Amino acid sequence: MTEAISPLAPKTLPDMPPVPGVTLATRKAGIKYADRTDLLTMLFEPGTTVAGVFTRSRCPSAPVETCRDHLPGGRARMLVVNAGNANAFTGKKGRATTAVTVKAAAAAAGCGESEIFLSSTGVIGEPLDPAHFERHLLDMAATARPDGWVDAARAIMTTDTFAKMVTRTVSIGGVDVVVNGISKGAGMIAPDMATMLAYVATDAPLSAGVLQQLLDRYVGTTFNAITVDSDTSTSDTLLAFATGAAAGRGAPAIADPEDPRLAAFAEAFADCLRELAVMVVRDGEGARKLVRVTVTGAESDASAKRIAMSVANSPLVKTAVAGEDANWGRVVMAVGKAGEPADRDRLAIWFGDILVASEGERAEGYSEAQASEYMKADEIDIRADIGLGDGCFTAWTCDLTKEYVAINGDYRS
Amino acid sequence: MTEAISPLAPKTLPDMPPVPGVTLATRKAGIKYADRTDLLTMLFEPGTTVAGVFTRSRCPSAPVETCRDHLPGGRARMLVVNAGNANAFTGKKGRATTAVTVKAAAAAAGCGESEIFLSSTGVIGEPLDPAHFERHLLDMAATARPDGWVDAARAIMTTDTFAKMVTRTVSIGGVDVVVNGISKGAGMIAPDMATMLAYVATDAPLSAGVLQQLLDRYVGTTFNAITVDSDTSTSDTLLAFATGAAAGRGAPAIADPEDPRLAAFAEAFADCLRELAVMVVRDGEGARKLVRVTVTGAESDASAKRIAMSVANSPLVKTAVAGEDANWGRVVMAVGKAGEPADRDRLAIWFGDILVASEGERAEGYSEAQASEYMKADEIDIRADIGLGDGCFTAWTCDLTKEYVAINGDYRS
Repeated sequence: MTEAISPLAPKTLPDMPPVPGVTLATRKAGIKYADRTDLLTMLFEPGTTVAGVFTRSRCPSAPVETCRDHLPGGRARMLVVNAGNANAFTGKKGRATTAVTVKAAAAAAGCGESEIFLSSTGVIGEPLDPAHFERHLLDMAATARPDGWVDAARAIMTTDTFAKMVTRTVSIGGVDVVVNGISKGAGMIAPDMATMLAYVATDAPLSAGVLQQLLDRYVGTTFNAITVDSDTSTSDTLLAFATGAAAGRGAPAIADPEDPRLAAFAEAFADCLRELAVMVVRDGEGARKLVRVTVTGAESDASAKRIAMSVANSPLVKTAVAGEDANWGRVVMAVGKAGEPADRDRLAIWFGDILVASEGERAEGYSEAQASEYMKADEIDIRADIGLGDGCFTAWTCDLTKEYVAINGDYRS
Repeated sequence: MTEAISPLAPKTLPDMPPVPGVTLATRKAGIKYADRTDLLTMLFEPGTTVAGVFTRSRCPSAPVETCRDHLPGGRARMLVVNAGNANAFTGKKGRATTAVTVKAAAAAAGCGESEIFLSSTGVIGEPLDPAHFERHLLDMAATARPDGWVDAARAIMTTDTFAKMVTRTVSIGGVDVVVNGISKGAGMIAPDMATMLAYVATDAPLSAGVLQQLLDRYVGTTFNAITVDSDTSTSDTLLAFATGAAAGRGAPAIADPEDPRLAAFAEAFADCLRELAVMVVRDGEGARKLVRVTVTGAESDASAKRIAMSVANSPLVKTAVAGEDANWGRVVMAVGKAGEPADRDRLAIWFGDILVASEGERAEGYSEAQASEYMKADEIDIRADIGLGDGCFTAWTCDLTKEYVAINGDYRS
């Protein structure tokens, strides 16, 4: 496993303020890792609303099923997250563990079972002992503090090389509210591990319906626009919580997603999701370069997304970026294989600001030396214009390096 | 680039007999490689029928377009193949080159232009000078010989580590006929290269319609069932030729694909396609292990194929195989992400004969030591039973090694 921090990590850590209505606690539960925190709880004030989106895997983990069951209630009082064991493909034992954990959490928080949300990240197929949770939850609820965001981001890491946090303060109806977020993992980022997890909390007074609408609106262009290795986890979970505590400072309750007072908040919320998502790519296994793939001129946005993901997932494009090789022929290949409407003779491709190909052939005056120089950067922009319509999409990925193979293939040798 | 022969290469070369009605020639045209053959022609007797399937890329190479234009005629007299330059994404220049080449080949073979078929494999985006063909084709047609199959398989290699050939002799209406095939390349197998090419020739008297039906029937479970890196080339071409020369020895002309006299031939033909296709995987970039992925119990064969390809294309499954790691959790992940009907709690997974998971959890009595021992083999069988229906499919892939990344990312450093 890699020990060094990703070279693409943010240079500074954000100063994470408390979110009124949220308290946090972490513990060393010893689920898999020795001598580090691996258990996180977030407690929410009564009345906190919740929204979520989950993996589309047909083999979801037991905690994902619990969250799906509880989400229609729209209320959350406690989130419990562990690292080191995904409780995925664990059969009846896995469901027994989530049932015991939900009961213990509800007792600790003094709430109904449907107000408990769970996530687990780590090994697939290994039974997870519910005693880890029963032992700690009561004490964690009793000692939770509002200032634990950095510790929270650390406790959910598996082989992440840096803790992922974001914060924004934004006005809603003239009152400042806070949006905090944490995330971990990149696709199935690590040996035997599975999970992308992200949590966003705000003190804005938003209904569960508004919160879900915001998630649905922005997840497609943020978390669903990133890829490290095209391998979708069994446990992907993005949950958003709104405590409503800012109502006490005069913030208006928002129950209509079209409410104009929501506009600035929605933008900050989308911004948080995007930043958390791109941080996951910055910590992709073995990543040395961040790659932004923009497709314009497709027949529709959906078509542009499929083409962008075809480029972003192409092993040959990703190895070329790793080799600092301006190999635009592989971008042509990846556009061509996407199965979407495209016309070879209208296609144009840029690396950064450099036009490398247009009208079905290498661009006039293309300089290999100039393009190769560009490829040395840490952050690479690839743009393809399809020349057919107005559809556009931006995806983020990283390069494919020998370290990726080493991390995922060598760890037993 | 790798120099060593793939450890998965066949241990013996087949003895390639002539195909009556086919003569071959190769030349060192110096298109890209120094001091090796890079140009192949096959000449066919008048009356030879032809069928073909091509890349579904929206950015196909110029030679693919030529083949598509000529195929409706159903007749072939000459095939021209070069290695070192794919004539792909070369715009008007590319089309001018194929036009000049077709004209030169038709003059050399003394036939109509629609009886000429072309393929090019190599760099994308580099103009291909038609003089390479004009200089050689007349002489190649004049000196072609029936016994040139091994040389032919070598002339079309790019970074292949071994020449790929197959032969079968099979009876059709009581008369023995020959089926010979050659292929090259694995997806986009090499730096800047693009192309999977395969050619099959027989002296059986088959109509073009019968030949096309056979290709359409078998390509899905052979060439379209293999993957090295999920990157579809701009130039994939599979052409089949039937000279009909065996009619002179009493073989019946077959014009109906349901003709019962075709049965044994069809089986041998399918066998040739499968063997050529699997040889392409055996020579996949950096491949150290051949992996057969079989999905049974899916809702339909089409669904089984999508699940099998999701497993076969998963970087995490492929790196686990490279690491000789019996990581069945990644197979669960890949089944789950395929987007096909699946029920986690009915899923069963085998590595070889070892049941590793069933009914949604690790199998009773599963031995990690036994499974790890199995993973040391050169050829790995992964089987997943979905438990929903009768759909099944088998795909072939190889492991994902650091050599793959080195071959595709390091070659400029």
